[in-house]
Amino acid sequence: MTTTQFNRRNFLSASAALAGGAMAGSALLPGAANAAPAAARDKVRLGLIGTGMRGQVLLAELVRRDDVEVVALCDIEPIMLKHALGQVEKAGKPRPRTYGEDRDQKAYKRMLDAGGLDGVIIATPWEFHAPMAIAAMQAKIPVGCEVVAGITLQDHWDVLNTQLKTGTPYMLLENVCYRRDVMAALQMVRAGLFGELLHLQGGYQHDLRAVKFNSGNPAKPYGGGVEFGEKGWSEAHWRTQHSVERNGELYPSHGIGPCAMYTNINRGNRFTRINAFATKARGLHDYIVKQPGGAQHANAKVKFKLGDIVTTTLACENGETIILQHDTSLPRPYSLGFRVQGTDGLWMDLNNSIHIEGVSKPHQWDDFKAYQDKYDHPVWRKYAAQAEGAGHGGMDFFVIHAFVEALKANAPMPIDIYDAVTWSAITPLSEQSIAANFQTLDFPDFTGGQWKSRKPIFALDGKY
Amino acid sequence: MTTTQFNRRNFLSASAALAGGAMAGSALLPGAANAAPAAARDKVRLGLIGTGMRGQVLLAELVRRDDVEVVALCDIEPIMLKHALGQVEKAGKPRPRTYGEDRDQKAYKRMLDAGGLDGVIIATPWEFHAPMAIAAMQAKIPVGCEVVAGITLQDHWDVLNTQLKTGTPYMLLENVCYRRDVMAALQMVRAGLFGELLHLQGGYQHDLRAVKFNSGNPAKPYGGGVEFGEKGWSEAHWRTQHSVERNGELYPSHGIGPCAMYTNINRGNRFTRINAFATKARGLHDYIVKQPGGAQHANAKVKFKLGDIVTTTLACENGETIILQHDTSLPRPYSLGFRVQGTDGLWMDLNNSIHIEGVSKPHQWDDFKAYQDKYDHPVWRKYAAQAEGAGHGGMDFFVIHAFVEALKANAPMPIDIYDAVTWSAITPLSEQSIAANFQTLDFPDFTGGQWKSRKPIFALDGKY
Repeated sequence: MTTTQFNRRNFLSASAALAGGAMAGSALLPGAANAAPAAARDKVRLGLIGTGMRGQVLLAELVRRDDVEVVALCDIEPIMLKHALGQVEKAGKPRPRTYGEDRDQKAYKRMLDAGGLDGVIIATPWEFHAPMAIAAMQAKIPVGCEVVAGITLQDHWDVLNTQLKTGTPYMLLENVCYRRDVMAALQMVRAGLFGELLHLQGGYQHDLRAVKFNSGNPAKPYGGGVEFGEKGWSEAHWRTQHSVERNGELYPSHGIGPCAMYTNINRGNRFTRINAFATKARGLHDYIVKQPGGAQHANAKVKFKLGDIVTTTLACENGETIILQHDTSLPRPYSLGFRVQGTDGLWMDLNNSIHIEGVSKPHQWDDFKAYQDKYDHPVWRKYAAQAEGAGHGGMDFFVIHAFVEALKANAPMPIDIYDAVTWSAITPLSEQSIAANFQTLDFPDFTGGQWKSRKPIFALDGKY
Repeated sequence: MTTTQFNRRNFLSASAALAGGAMAGSALLPGAANAAPAAARDKVRLGLIGTGMRGQVLLAELVRRDDVEVVALCDIEPIMLKHALGQVEKAGKPRPRTYGEDRDQKAYKRMLDAGGLDGVIIATPWEFHAPMAIAAMQAKIPVGCEVVAGITLQDHWDVLNTQLKTGTPYMLLENVCYRRDVMAALQMVRAGLFGELLHLQGGYQHDLRAVKFNSGNPAKPYGGGVEFGEKGWSEAHWRTQHSVERNGELYPSHGIGPCAMYTNINRGNRFTRINAFATKARGLHDYIVKQPGGAQHANAKVKFKLGDIVTTTLACENGETIILQHDTSLPRPYSLGFRVQGTDGLWMDLNNSIHIEGVSKPHQWDDFKAYQDKYDHPVWRKYAAQAEGAGHGGMDFFVIHAFVEALKANAPMPIDIYDAVTWSAITPLSEQSIAANFQTLDFPDFTGGQWKSRKPIFALDGKY
């Protein structure tokens, strides 16, 4: 069996801007200044590493909260750092310390070393999540990490083992777990409306071609060109390279997060087997050559490894199956493709419909709306007005809210380290499966058997 | 690896009514009286083996045609045989010869031996399709066989090898290939509207619980009880036992037939790998215990092997992937779940929507209706009025029409032996995959390499 190992060194060397600094190998000593306090508190001092497009959306949620002080910002792209500073200023909040103007890739370590942080949010390119989270946890600074948790399977073990060793809180900032219909469906699952769960589906089906390519103009991060990597801007600068070098389910958590919550993965259940199939890769090349001047551009010769559609299937200890679909290189409407099905009925989000035995007419769909209203999650009922206008239809309010509230209360993180590595490890495992001619693999038990006794905690208290 | 071998002997012994006769093992000598004629003809003399609920629907299509004489009927259930005779009589057609009143399982062989048949349609329980088709082909009687082609993988090789050896025409009567939207989508595929195909989905998602169980009363074949097997009637008499003994994609052709036509399987393309996952089995037991008196019924103790939802994934030589979903034991609306996706867009039947780059607004669905009208297949335009009222929304008119027209013209069967065994072999292969802990398997090349040079013929001439 071939093992696909993402090579961080090669990856970085493909991007001259990012390769400016060397990756430090030595672990920091735990920073005493950042030791987690024992008692609950009303306010937290947070730092943000990565102030690009995604970081700025999260920052918007942070600066409008009274219980958060944004005390430090770090980015090695000065334009993005400046945007973020402007956001804080516009919100009338004190100017945070900044790191990275010198484009030093170790800048984030200086930020962690400086202390004075009750937590750090990581919203950098994927390949930096694991080393940054590890460094923060070693410095005893609680981590809210954007998806994904790491690149290689070993990354995931390293992040997990660091968390277990240091005890530093870690939350994966998976926002779709907080989507309004996803949370209503969770209430329905918990109320037993679907009966015993059997099969679930989710995915990331989103035409990202104008995200993966642009002109490199910082004023226009989406579309308008065929540049990526060194000459690309924002996500095109780093994300697209993953489509060149990797073939797998590159973005699993939006789909698997909700499905894992529905099926209590790591909390009475676990993934046992995983398989992935990939189509050939056509979409990104096609996109390039269809753009003005694209056919003559050097990028028309780039060979993309990522199959346009990747289908991942998982089996669970308790007998459920889950399908994930990754589809980001083709023209299509956005759809996460959720399906939640049990012995008593099913919900699908594509047609916004539901069927419940004994309620619905036999063999007929009902509109989901009445169920949405009836099973609307308490946190949505409570915070809908505040969430209005937040990123991604309000989801970003809730994911930041949950991280901040759990941090303030010294409570367990609602999407914790086991969730994070289990969901995110789907990527390297799917790469292995595809590289081995679509072979099925055992899914590692990151909990070391604790899945048998751990209990669900996500969104149970009505507060976050 | 465990090989799941369906045991026909055990299966039959579970059904006392069916086990009344022994299965003959000796092959018939080719019947000279049935030798295929060399020239086209205006009319064909057909026999029908299996005059149950499905056979009667096909018979309705046969008796209303002027180019078909139904000259022989065979069934070992006298009530069903009588129904079928009544159909012919009501249509004002001559009374056919009948076989099977004595419940002799060899009755169909006597029918084949008697000669005078230009073709035979087989609509018996699945486990009889292979031996009956083999006997008919050996007797040089062209076969129109209801789905499926066989039970075990060896069955499929046997059916194929018999066809190759005898040269007797064989068509799989897969009606969904003739569904109006499925055929419109085929026209769109052939017109290049989706660009280069990448990913397809289909399935059989149909709540069959009231088909799998009834009271055993011949007047009420659907629901109203929890009997199956010996005491069940119609499909409950035989079909349900497959859910007891087998775990796999038991009914692949409705989904894979159209997908195979879209992707030119066996005609420039082929399946290379197959994988199947199954959920636990809950639905059928749940159904039994929810019925009046069900919890106390002996069938409440039956252990069903068929996972409620079976997900099969296929890879193709040309780089496409296909997902099939089998879901027949749970409450749900009917959906074959088609998805046809290429470099330029996709169609999904669940939301009856389509997206085509350059036509649709970016990231938005369009209603499929305008496309249905524009790309309506010529055979539907031509025969829609005749098809009206035919079984399954007109599909049954077209599948019988195609078989009869090809037979009359001595033309190649539009859904031929390679299609039949390739699609139907998904069942035993999926059983093997599931039994081997969801392992991925190589897909056999039934064409012996001919897939490279064979050309598409399905529904190309505008006649059938």
